[in-house]
Amino acid sequence: MTTPTSRTTSARRLHDPQARGFASDNYAGVHPEVLEAIALANGGHQVSYGADAYTEHLQDVFRGHFGGHATAYPVFNGTGANVVALQAVTERWQSVICAASAHIHVDECGAPEKMGGLKLLPVGAPLGTLTLDAIDTQAYGFDDQHRAQPGVVSITQSTELGTLYSVEEIAEIVEHAHTLGMAVHLDGARIANAAAALDRPLRDFTTDVGVDIVSFGGTKNGLMLGEAVVVLNPDAVRGMDYLRKSSMQLASKMRFLSAQFDALLSGDLWLRNARHANAMAQRLETAVRAIPGVQVLRPVQANAVFAVLPQDVTARLQKLYPFYVWDESTGEVRWMTSFDTTEADVDSFAAALRAELVAD
Amino acid sequence: MTTPTSRTTSARRLHDPQARGFASDNYAGVHPEVLEAIALANGGHQVSYGADAYTEHLQDVFRGHFGGHATAYPVFNGTGANVVALQAVTERWQSVICAASAHIHVDECGAPEKMGGLKLLPVGAPLGTLTLDAIDTQAYGFDDQHRAQPGVVSITQSTELGTLYSVEEIAEIVEHAHTLGMAVHLDGARIANAAAALDRPLRDFTTDVGVDIVSFGGTKNGLMLGEAVVVLNPDAVRGMDYLRKSSMQLASKMRFLSAQFDALLSGDLWLRNARHANAMAQRLETAVRAIPGVQVLRPVQANAVFAVLPQDVTARLQKLYPFYVWDESTGEVRWMTSFDTTEADVDSFAAALRAELVAD
Amino acid sequence: MTTPTSRTTSARRLHDPQARGFASDNYAGVHPEVLEAIALANGGHQVSYGADAYTEHLQDVFRGHFGGHATAYPVFNGTGANVVALQAVTERWQSVICAASAHIHVDECGAPEKMGGLKLLPVGAPLGTLTLDAIDTQAYGFDDQHRAQPGVVSITQSTELGTLYSVEEIAEIVEHAHTLGMAVHLDGARIANAAAALDRPLRDFTTDVGVDIVSFGGTKNGLMLGEAVVVLNPDAVRGMDYLRKSSMQLASKMRFLSAQFDALLSGDLWLRNARHANAMAQRLETAVRAIPGVQVLRPVQANAVFAVLPQDVTARLQKLYPFYVWDESTGEVRWMTSFDTTEADVDSFAAALRAELVAD
Amino acid sequence: MTTPTSRTTSARRLHDPQARGFASDNYAGVHPEVLEAIALANGGHQVSYGADAYTEHLQDVFRGHFGGHATAYPVFNGTGANVVALQAVTERWQSVICAASAHIHVDECGAPEKMGGLKLLPVGAPLGTLTLDAIDTQAYGFDDQHRAQPGVVSITQSTELGTLYSVEEIAEIVEHAHTLGMAVHLDGARIANAAAALDRPLRDFTTDVGVDIVSFGGTKNGLMLGEAVVVLNPDAVRGMDYLRKSSMQLASKMRFLSAQFDALLSGDLWLRNARHANAMAQRLETAVRAIPGVQVLRPVQANAVFAVLPQDVTARLQKLYPFYVWDESTGEVRWMTSFDTTEADVDSFAAALRAELVAD
Repeated sequence: MTTPTSRTTSARRLHDPQARGFASDNYAGVHPEVLEAIALANGGHQVSYGADAYTEHLQDVFRGHFGGHATAYPVFNGTGANVVALQAVTERWQSVICAASAHIHVDECGAPEKMGGLKLLPVGAPLGTLTLDAIDTQAYGFDDQHRAQPGVVSITQSTELGTLYSVEEIAEIVEHAHTLGMAVHLDGARIANAAAALDRPLRDFTTDVGVDIVSFGGTKNGLMLGEAVVVLNPDAVRGMDYLRKSSMQLASKMRFLSAQFDALLSGDLWLRNARHANAMAQRLETAVRAIPGVQVLRPVQANAVFAVLPQDVTARLQKLYPFYVWDESTGEVRWMTSFDTTEADVDSFAAALRAELVAD
Repeated sequence: MTTPTSRTTSARRLHDPQARGFASDNYAGVHPEVLEAIALANGGHQVSYGADAYTEHLQDVFRGHFGGHATAYPVFNGTGANVVALQAVTERWQSVICAASAHIHVDECGAPEKMGGLKLLPVGAPLGTLTLDAIDTQAYGFDDQHRAQPGVVSITQSTELGTLYSVEEIAEIVEHAHTLGMAVHLDGARIANAAAALDRPLRDFTTDVGVDIVSFGGTKNGLMLGEAVVVLNPDAVRGMDYLRKSSMQLASKMRFLSAQFDALLSGDLWLRNARHANAMAQRLETAVRAIPGVQVLRPVQANAVFAVLPQDVTARLQKLYPFYVWDESTGEVRWMTSFDTTEADVDSFAAALRAELVAD
Repeated sequence: MTTPTSRTTSARRLHDPQARGFASDNYAGVHPEVLEAIALANGGHQVSYGADAYTEHLQDVFRGHFGGHATAYPVFNGTGANVVALQAVTERWQSVICAASAHIHVDECGAPEKMGGLKLLPVGAPLGTLTLDAIDTQAYGFDDQHRAQPGVVSITQSTELGTLYSVEEIAEIVEHAHTLGMAVHLDGARIANAAAALDRPLRDFTTDVGVDIVSFGGTKNGLMLGEAVVVLNPDAVRGMDYLRKSSMQLASKMRFLSAQFDALLSGDLWLRNARHANAMAQRLETAVRAIPGVQVLRPVQANAVFAVLPQDVTARLQKLYPFYVWDESTGEVRWMTSFDTTEADVDSFAAALRAELVAD
Repeated sequence: MTTPTSRTTSARRLHDPQARGFASDNYAGVHPEVLEAIALANGGHQVSYGADAYTEHLQDVFRGHFGGHATAYPVFNGTGANVVALQAVTERWQSVICAASAHIHVDECGAPEKMGGLKLLPVGAPLGTLTLDAIDTQAYGFDDQHRAQPGVVSITQSTELGTLYSVEEIAEIVEHAHTLGMAVHLDGARIANAAAALDRPLRDFTTDVGVDIVSFGGTKNGLMLGEAVVVLNPDAVRGMDYLRKSSMQLASKMRFLSAQFDALLSGDLWLRNARHANAMAQRLETAVRAIPGVQVLRPVQANAVFAVLPQDVTARLQKLYPFYVWDESTGEVRWMTSFDTTEADVDSFAAALRAELVAD
């Protein structure tokens, strides 16, 4: 075997760094400040598996946002965060009440069931938000041995449908759940967008209203990758360290997850990114609502716009700007904005859409 | 809520980038070429969940190393790679024969059992390497409904004990396993160290001897994070895409995993890093073998040195250079070298050890 | 320790063998012919775990009912039968489409998810029967790695709501499922009641319309305990022996399960029992429909009658004849009949109900 | 569909009720007193799923044997009892220390791992009995997140190798386990044989030495089928009702399980049966030890005799009296005796063996 003699880097660019679309906030890359943080965390040795300086410091950062009892456990991705968090607040025989549109039910390939052994009890939620009545359709049968015991209510904030719970709505759900002996998990894959939209600190709609555990999203808000399970109510949670490891979510070089979160959360980057993405969604909504033939069906409260378009228009437009069809049967499409969406992106997209529909 | 006005980066350094030790190759950071590749992959939008240009290109890179039938599935960490790979080659009722020292048995908090539903059949392996005889202590009971059917033999190359299988030994194991209807999984968390030590291309001891599936390690060889399940024998494998997702190992911004692997594997970085780490282990072994009172118990074949030291010496030395005690009862310690270990690190560590033992 | 000297039997009766009610068909005991069969199967030694003469013979018995490709695997209970059967027709990453009222979703404490790792996709089914449209609300996303792949449609015949699928409806569901690459499982906890009600041989609405696998119910039709997973389409099924054992459903003294089924199925006992139970439900329906103030909400097609009563009437009546409230909110109650329900039971119950409502 | 007109019973005998052998105590049938109890429990309706008079009464019966804090949960079989019991004393991230010869490791097709998500840590136990030293080879790493936390020690009494723990040995194991924060599970598939051999009440080597939970075996001691999980230490156990149901071990017509146990345990039937089986094993041991060429390798302490025979002798003898080869490589065979083994069985078997070996 001959030793290669070249020592030039293999690092290369294979894509157009100017191309953007409205497909998903996870099509975006890494915010430059986050990348800089990764570079600064590099070099030398740091204890692996979370006993590093960055992860230690991160606890203060999260406590600044969520209060002094919060503990953050960085993990790799949102599915991992959710499955770890849900296991941590349930017994083996319990189940999870969630919206039928919840990511944990729809988009995790059965990970909660297959990896966590968790039964899901999906309930109807046309706007993506659970109501007390909807919860009550499944919150029964406590002490009935035939029934996987409802142990936790999982809500998503902002929701998979681009909508928001008000602080009061979450407070009501938590009170209701706690009264029935259930914990509350908040899937915060886009929690920053929610805080920005509500114009409220993170703890206002989590810690302070009694949410027990949060999947805190970083990836969709400018990280390279990284989510964190944030334990708000230690009394409701067991075994986090072991569950993170056995759920294959324990990073060896954890400093690089924690440094990203530090960049995002120590200052206002998380909020700047989220506000910008939300503002771009508002701009897009305003623009498309003014176009005849476009129907915006749901409130635009975070960084998603859902609209119904003629199918042929969708097909042609997708060639210019990637985005997803949400519902083949109705022609509803989803447009996501992200921290790197520009006003020009929105305006030119809206112009193209207008051209299509006027041309039609 | 007041908008923060500062917009300076929160990125910061919290550690000494010159501090190093011999605790683990995952105490090291990211190789600069890998970091550069991440930066180059940034900017603009790329399709998420693996349909990006970097992941597509990565297939060619892996095929260059493992042959034209290979397919690589980037995942987050080694436990994830192992659990996905083992599920992909087993039925629900099958079991895994492995060394009692295997990472999957010892260091994964039960993830194979808890997440994969996989029964492990650990067998004695004093040097970390399975023998045919050892395998046969568990390779029985085929067609016995009472027995979790042995479905796969899992070997680690290089092993958790710093030893190596020869190419011929792997070939024999594979032939034996296949004859019995079992697949072969290779846990390659340090596969590059093995290739470097054997001075053989990667495919020589994997594809070309019939290994079915590999957990390919990147993190311990200079990546920020990233492993890949590499399917070598598609006929033995089912459901990789779904298993990766349901096992919570599907990265949304996968381009950043793939770009790291591209930097590592397109050129010779993987081999340079591994050779260097191995050479440092050799240098360390040579140095410590010359010190009276140090017993090196196992062959040093990759990037680990195991030695027995007096307990008080260990305790004092750990304050200077972090490393782990491997076996409290015998006083055996483990020293790992990595891509960033320097000759000076080794020499000064050996000098400190010598001073301790002479001083004693 | 003193050896007890008495050698009299401890066998005793602790209940009133004349007391009956309408709570459930599993409140009933064992049909005398079944008990006789158990006694005849007793004595001497028989190979355990299914290699006995009774289990061997049982294959012929089941083939007589389900055709020459059928294989029956006796198990302990319905939940066990369902979890084994569903595992046998699915990959680890697949999911199960079922009615929201299905026993597997409502009454198995999450066993399919927790033990089988199976994601359930419950869909609305007001009468307990799935329609093609209802199935299609979840039969999508094939090849989408984010989605637990719909792998099997599970129907219950007769349903948990006492209704029936026609032979044609099952044929349509099977054809639809197979076209989409899904298997079909039939939960036949009350399959005999269905056959009796349809007045069709068992194979007409199972084997001959393409159902792949059946949970065949014995307990509710006069066995002491015992169900059987019946594999109708061997090509759709893998690993039955191992799945039965690993799912804790393999009886050691299996002859006593098989002998019960032999008594039930070799002659017409299964049909006599089912017809009788169905006839009693018809008699009850007729009687209560004639009582003012009783509303029978669903078609009475098997051995269940659902009716809405005033709450206080229900409470008083339950003291005379045990039965369950099905829906607290509506006042709906369920009356089940069984092989040992007598005409006098029905008549006196109806008389008591009439007295209540007239008295009211 | 023609209604069958014959109404004669299908109950029939398909085997020779005089044939017996030494293959397993589960080749035997049902003790007549147990069958009588089943018949007496029949007739009329009883509440299903455990709320019947027989199961209620059974609590007193078990408390008579195990003390006033004991609660018994009847289940179907031993694998079910073990998996339920082990789940009930562990968290999701814990593991089970057991002998390498334990039934849970060797003969349950991976049910503990696959159904319970339990990692097993098998340790060497040449006589089937765990020692403190053997336990300590795996009882480490408490608080290490990489390690499935040892949460329970599982011992089998009498063991799979026909040996016994003394009361003192169990007391020591319990004390050691409790000191380390681990619970103790006793797999009592043959617990009656152990009590008979020790000549001690059941509670002496369970409750009174601190065992937390027992799998109480009925099937091998004369029941048709039935085991019970007996909770001795309620503080160490959670969720029994739910775990039994979700583990598919909840019988609907539970009265018939409980009535069997009543017959077994209310009087001395359990002890008579066990003493008889043990005595037959002693008689067999005595007889075969006197035969030249037979090597009895392990102490015969319960109802199993292990011996080494020439292979051809084994083969010929198996045609006369079924029994199993335990270890193909050494020629070791296992002979089990049961409640229905007769002195004549033993004597004629020993005579046949003697004839073989003298003839040889």
